[in-house]
Amino acid sequence: MYPYQYLLEFTTQVLIKMGFTYAHASESAKVFLAAELRGHSTHGVIRLGDYYKLWKAGRINVNPTIKIVHETPSTAVVDGDSTLGMIPAKYAMELAIQKANKVGTGWTVVKNSCNFGIAGYYAMMALEHNMIGITMTNASPLVAPTFSSEGMLGTNPIAVAIPAKTQPPFVADFATTPINRGKFTIAAKKGEKIGFGFAQDKEGNPTDDSSILEKGGTMLPLGGDREHGSHKGYCLGAIVDIFSGALSGANFGPFVPPMVAYLPLLEKSVGDGLGHFFGAMRVDAFRPATEFNDSMDEWISAFRNAKPAIGHEKVLIPGDLERESEARKKQEGIILIPQVITDLQKIAYTFELKFE
Amino acid sequence: MYPYQYLLEFTTQVLIKMGFTYAHASESAKVFLAAELRGHSTHGVIRLGDYYKLWKAGRINVNPTIKIVHETPSTAVVDGDSTLGMIPAKYAMELAIQKANKVGTGWTVVKNSCNFGIAGYYAMMALEHNMIGITMTNASPLVAPTFSSEGMLGTNPIAVAIPAKTQPPFVADFATTPINRGKFTIAAKKGEKIGFGFAQDKEGNPTDDSSILEKGGTMLPLGGDREHGSHKGYCLGAIVDIFSGALSGANFGPFVPPMVAYLPLLEKSVGDGLGHFFGAMRVDAFRPATEFNDSMDEWISAFRNAKPAIGHEKVLIPGDLERESEARKKQEGIILIPQVITDLQKIAYTFELKFE
Repeated sequence: MYPYQYLLEFTTQVLIKMGFTYAHASESAKVFLAAELRGHSTHGVIRLGDYYKLWKAGRINVNPTIKIVHETPSTAVVDGDSTLGMIPAKYAMELAIQKANKVGTGWTVVKNSCNFGIAGYYAMMALEHNMIGITMTNASPLVAPTFSSEGMLGTNPIAVAIPAKTQPPFVADFATTPINRGKFTIAAKKGEKIGFGFAQDKEGNPTDDSSILEKGGTMLPLGGDREHGSHKGYCLGAIVDIFSGALSGANFGPFVPPMVAYLPLLEKSVGDGLGHFFGAMRVDAFRPATEFNDSMDEWISAFRNAKPAIGHEKVLIPGDLERESEARKKQEGIILIPQVITDLQKIAYTFELKFE
Repeated sequence: MYPYQYLLEFTTQVLIKMGFTYAHASESAKVFLAAELRGHSTHGVIRLGDYYKLWKAGRINVNPTIKIVHETPSTAVVDGDSTLGMIPAKYAMELAIQKANKVGTGWTVVKNSCNFGIAGYYAMMALEHNMIGITMTNASPLVAPTFSSEGMLGTNPIAVAIPAKTQPPFVADFATTPINRGKFTIAAKKGEKIGFGFAQDKEGNPTDDSSILEKGGTMLPLGGDREHGSHKGYCLGAIVDIFSGALSGANFGPFVPPMVAYLPLLEKSVGDGLGHFFGAMRVDAFRPATEFNDSMDEWISAFRNAKPAIGHEKVLIPGDLERESEARKKQEGIILIPQVITDLQKIAYTFELKFE
């Protein structure tokens, strides 16, 4: 069990050793740790290993100049200068919030970026301004469109954070696939099947093989098969990809570069790095703020009190589990699996840091 | 087989007989017919019967004053004055486009409205301006959140239309449930089971009974069950509900009024009528227009040429089927089922119109 502060400090130090400024390092470390706290450990410190290798391969710029390439009163395009995704992502979300302050809503996109951690982190930045926050990002292609056997889309998450008044906020943060890639890895390590409805083999046949992605298989979009609405999951993943990639001038679809160093860069590029999309909507650009916040309290309380299905205790509001996890882990500490601990110790050794 | 023009004219005349102006009637009739042409006949002229009954019950205002209640440079709230949803919806989408022209993007919501037909119609209005169009609406509660057995959300569709250059546009228009309600009705009429993953009984047990909705059952969100990501479908439906309802000051969640005359209005109301959400983003608010349109051509062509899964011929781009249907039916005519023909003949008789 690791205290939050210890992992935050360690992550910051690793990033500083790579060459990032203290400001960039500590802000980015917060996003890694937010993933740990909120129970999305697949986006937590486990990723430091990936970033370390990308850094070693010279594929991460530690001294970026983040700049606005184009803007209108409600929009902007930000160039991430090939650095850690957290840095331009935070910049772009702050910019969206500023624009919303002026004209009601703000919409920014980032190109030339890489993975930015959990999408929800940025969406939630809008909450303290009593704004609705929206975040999307594209990612390396692992998901096949309906009727295809080719990986064309990432797990392309959508996050939406909505402020209430006395109730905690509504925070949805989800991949546009039934499960995330991490579940395959975990099942494969345990030697378990993954179940049907999640993946197909390289020909497009249904499979429950948890190691199918290493055998040329692909993940299925939310919905699973056509009958159960996989074309809707495909639409969602495509919208996220186009908003994040095509609108920003980043790569999109099958051209999104792999964000792990053991995979070479693709031959064809249609833009710069990968892309993100951010939105901020001031609630009082629509209704008097107190009215909207009251409505959200009413919404949340109605849904929390909806009749539970047989075998279930209660209905959850998006963000409930993550918020509970965050409170608990900040108090009790964060559990890391042995493999991650070993990885972090190796990184520590390289940089003459300590990780115990 | 009915010619497009004949049904358009008839629908317009029916609406005029109800008391709508020619402008309102003919513009709304186009939306009914767009549903027929695009293969979404569950939102087509079959609905004239529902609207007729709502009109008879005095629940539709035929002489509305559509007005802006509040606005900022990039947002507006429109009051639909209890009329046919098509009228304020078209107004609000045009307003979003105007705002996008000025500040890059425009975001409008409508309250005090009712069903507006197919969401895609309004999203597609943005295309001729080389803008991305977005439409959402909430609807009467039929869908249970994950872990609940209570109908709290509508089938709450999302439509996104994105312009390309030489390729036809990307047009996604989908309910946030695996299938729409019409499929239950059709299966029930044929005496067929609906299959699993679509609905649950009133306790929350899985069922394949196609008439379960009449027995207190509820529809499941996209994803079906928790294991396959129903909580993501629940998030999507909730986001559409909050954006359309809570942000506009319309009713939301379980308080959305039923849009059929045989169901009484609910006891509790938390806003006015039902709500819609519209967005327009100028593509050149982000990138030079030709660059973006070229990227979309490349996106579409990459996905169209993705490797088909075994047993499938090709990968579809969202909007392909609807566009083909539209071209064919505009040429060949529209088939109506006998029950709809009888309904339309009854309405014709009441209004001293002809429908053969």
